[in-house]
Amino acid sequence: MTETFRPQARPARGFLDKRAGDLRAERRIIDAVSAVYERYGFERLETGAFEYADALGKFLPDADRPNEGVFALQDDDEQWMALRYDLTAPLARFAAQNWDNLPKPFRRYAAGTVWRNEKPGPGRYREFIQCDADTVGSARPEADAEIIAMAVEGFVAAGLPASDFVLKINNRKLLNGLMASAGVADAGQKLGVLRAVDKLDRLGVQGVKLLLGAGRKDESGAFTKGAQLGPAAIDAVLAFVEAGGGTRSATLDRLSNVIGGSAEGDEGVEELSRIGAALAGLGVSEAHFTGQPVPATGFSFGVSRLAAALRASSRDAANEARGPVVVLALDQAAMGEYFAAAAELRASGVAAEVYLGSSGMRAQMKYADRRLSPAAVILGGDELAAGQVTIKDLDLGRALASGVSDNQQWRADRPGQVTIARGDMAATVRAILDAGA
Amino acid sequence: MTETFRPQARPARGFLDKRAGDLRAERRIIDAVSAVYERYGFERLETGAFEYADALGKFLPDADRPNEGVFALQDDDEQWMALRYDLTAPLARFAAQNWDNLPKPFRRYAAGTVWRNEKPGPGRYREFIQCDADTVGSARPEADAEIIAMAVEGFVAAGLPASDFVLKINNRKLLNGLMASAGVADAGQKLGVLRAVDKLDRLGVQGVKLLLGAGRKDESGAFTKGAQLGPAAIDAVLAFVEAGGGTRSATLDRLSNVIGGSAEGDEGVEELSRIGAALAGLGVSEAHFTGQPVPATGFSFGVSRLAAALRASSRDAANEARGPVVVLALDQAAMGEYFAAAAELRASGVAAEVYLGSSGMRAQMKYADRRLSPAAVILGGDELAAGQVTIKDLDLGRALASGVSDNQQWRADRPGQVTIARGDMAATVRAILDAGA
Repeated sequence: MTETFRPQARPARGFLDKRAGDLRAERRIIDAVSAVYERYGFERLETGAFEYADALGKFLPDADRPNEGVFALQDDDEQWMALRYDLTAPLARFAAQNWDNLPKPFRRYAAGTVWRNEKPGPGRYREFIQCDADTVGSARPEADAEIIAMAVEGFVAAGLPASDFVLKINNRKLLNGLMASAGVADAGQKLGVLRAVDKLDRLGVQGVKLLLGAGRKDESGAFTKGAQLGPAAIDAVLAFVEAGGGTRSATLDRLSNVIGGSAEGDEGVEELSRIGAALAGLGVSEAHFTGQPVPATGFSFGVSRLAAALRASSRDAANEARGPVVVLALDQAAMGEYFAAAAELRASGVAAEVYLGSSGMRAQMKYADRRLSPAAVILGGDELAAGQVTIKDLDLGRALASGVSDNQQWRADRPGQVTIARGDMAATVRAILDAGA
Repeated sequence: MTETFRPQARPARGFLDKRAGDLRAERRIIDAVSAVYERYGFERLETGAFEYADALGKFLPDADRPNEGVFALQDDDEQWMALRYDLTAPLARFAAQNWDNLPKPFRRYAAGTVWRNEKPGPGRYREFIQCDADTVGSARPEADAEIIAMAVEGFVAAGLPASDFVLKINNRKLLNGLMASAGVADAGQKLGVLRAVDKLDRLGVQGVKLLLGAGRKDESGAFTKGAQLGPAAIDAVLAFVEAGGGTRSATLDRLSNVIGGSAEGDEGVEELSRIGAALAGLGVSEAHFTGQPVPATGFSFGVSRLAAALRASSRDAANEARGPVVVLALDQAAMGEYFAAAAELRASGVAAEVYLGSSGMRAQMKYADRRLSPAAVILGGDELAAGQVTIKDLDLGRALASGVSDNQQWRADRPGQVTIARGDMAATVRAILDAGA
């Protein structure tokens, strides 16, 4: 019993094919962010796609579920390897391995693909690009300030206006200091406080207040037990989460008032204060301090996500893939002429190609239009004999078709098609490109 | 019995950590080659790292040896996926899947990582970068001419002088035509002919002649049986493999003489002739026709290999990673000043960082030297009080230490250290960078 095997063409589940427009947007972000990192003295590092499973900080995969969260496989020497799921674990491995020979502190950045073996869904992929910067081997708060400043500069360089985002900075020691000064020592109660303040955005101050105390009944009547804090402790926690806003130094003063006296809290305020001084030196105003817990250890750009966000806010207008100028292929005997014309356009910096299908003129024009070509170059028998060339302005054709520029004057200034001396070809095409840009 | 698990920091077998210098060389090649591809109207495409095993054109992996040649694993829906081992199979899958909606012919280029599950060794890795261009859906020989022209331009753009390489172009139909006109019909005999001409470089014309006839005894006395061709057929085959050299049209004439009359041979000559006309139009002189079998279907740059070749021929001098200017951190109270100085240098386009370790001045200078910093910026108490800054020229120090520039006059012109007005910092640092460039 035999069966012909016909694979159905499809990408692997959770993996995405990216075309020119998407790739250009991603590359622009990576290049812009990388340039910022390099100006800060960070050195690029690229590690292999695979790491040994132990280096990824996971236990060796269970034989039954080797792929829990990561794409893992067993090498022929029996060692388990897995595709990196972030860029931090490979950095830790690299730094540990080369520590003696690295300049310290070691600043590195990386832009690379990471893989997560998770359930794919709409907009949820199993492969994406991160762009990380980390400083290894510096205990100074200023190292954090630098990462914050680079994040701000990176976002701006990637195309997000500084007015469109705020970075919120917290310090774990502050929260520990708060617990100490509010007299919260019990682990369960601490967790209750964290859970309560995490709901600030959703429930507002009054909701959090209830969750810090006896508890809260929601609209459906369900009751959530609170952290059982006394009134003074509740006030301290609320003052803490509301300490943000205004200038960084005002926030620091408020934080200091709440957690004053606790050793760890004082340390946290001191560290934030040093970060603030460094940020002032660096001229960064987009970063604000907050008492609200924010998950932030180091910084990683999600390149694909940022590209999508920029596109959604249509700040990425130049994203559409502009096609090459198409030189029509009308006569086999003149192919050498067509190639020479394309080569001449390329030499003047214009992307150009000779049509290489087997269809006639109409299909060739349609092809050029589908590729979003700015212009078509026609070297028919008449043109060749007369030392001329015909240029068809396809940008104009598309503009008229879309109704964007249905303007008689514009139309008169810009003919849809011109026949000119062959020597003027490149300049004429360039003029069309410049008009469209 | 418990055991503390201490992973030893090491990269996975056959995978390489790349530092800034290597990455810069690779990126330069990819960017240069991509720019050439785009000028030719090729559209960038990036597919996911994984393909279903069937799309890779392999049989479904055997349960016992799922990783034969590729890195394969079974997804949780039981489908076998494998990391791509080249960029061609994913293109074929993509084109098949999207054929109806693609402009045809479809020109795409791709620069990406590929993975091979092979035995690693010195210089043999299991992960490397390819940079491919392919035209799908054109039967025209001119499509091949274009790929050839791009390969030539790509090598030159990547930094290989046009005088340093030759592309050899063959056509399978020529060889088939040769077999027909030489009267070689038996499959075993055909194979014998191929094996014989493959040894041209190693054995020379006389050795090949023996292998085409009765056979050849080597230096050790071992006898290799020949293809048993008659004298006329042997002469034809030798004339064929020696047809290359000189101009492309001269080669075509010689090839035509040998295989004239055979239908497939004539077709091959006609196709090469059309490729030749297109290459002439494109101004490509680095490509030569040959009767010698060359394995060539499409074109793929091995980026890492090309980077290594360029480095070996020391055409890649700018490769060493130049470090940032280091602003010394001498006093915690002045960190804001240091960060402001670094920010000012960055704003003038100079990579700069504040030292963020915890060591003293001597160690900081040593750090700057290890990072190949061009200069160190010193803002001590005296400088700050006087509105000045001290710049240490580390390029000079290294040049003197290496004995390269042990020249009194040069030394007098270029002091090792200057104390200047703070406002002149950026210009002074730039001057050191420009002198060292």
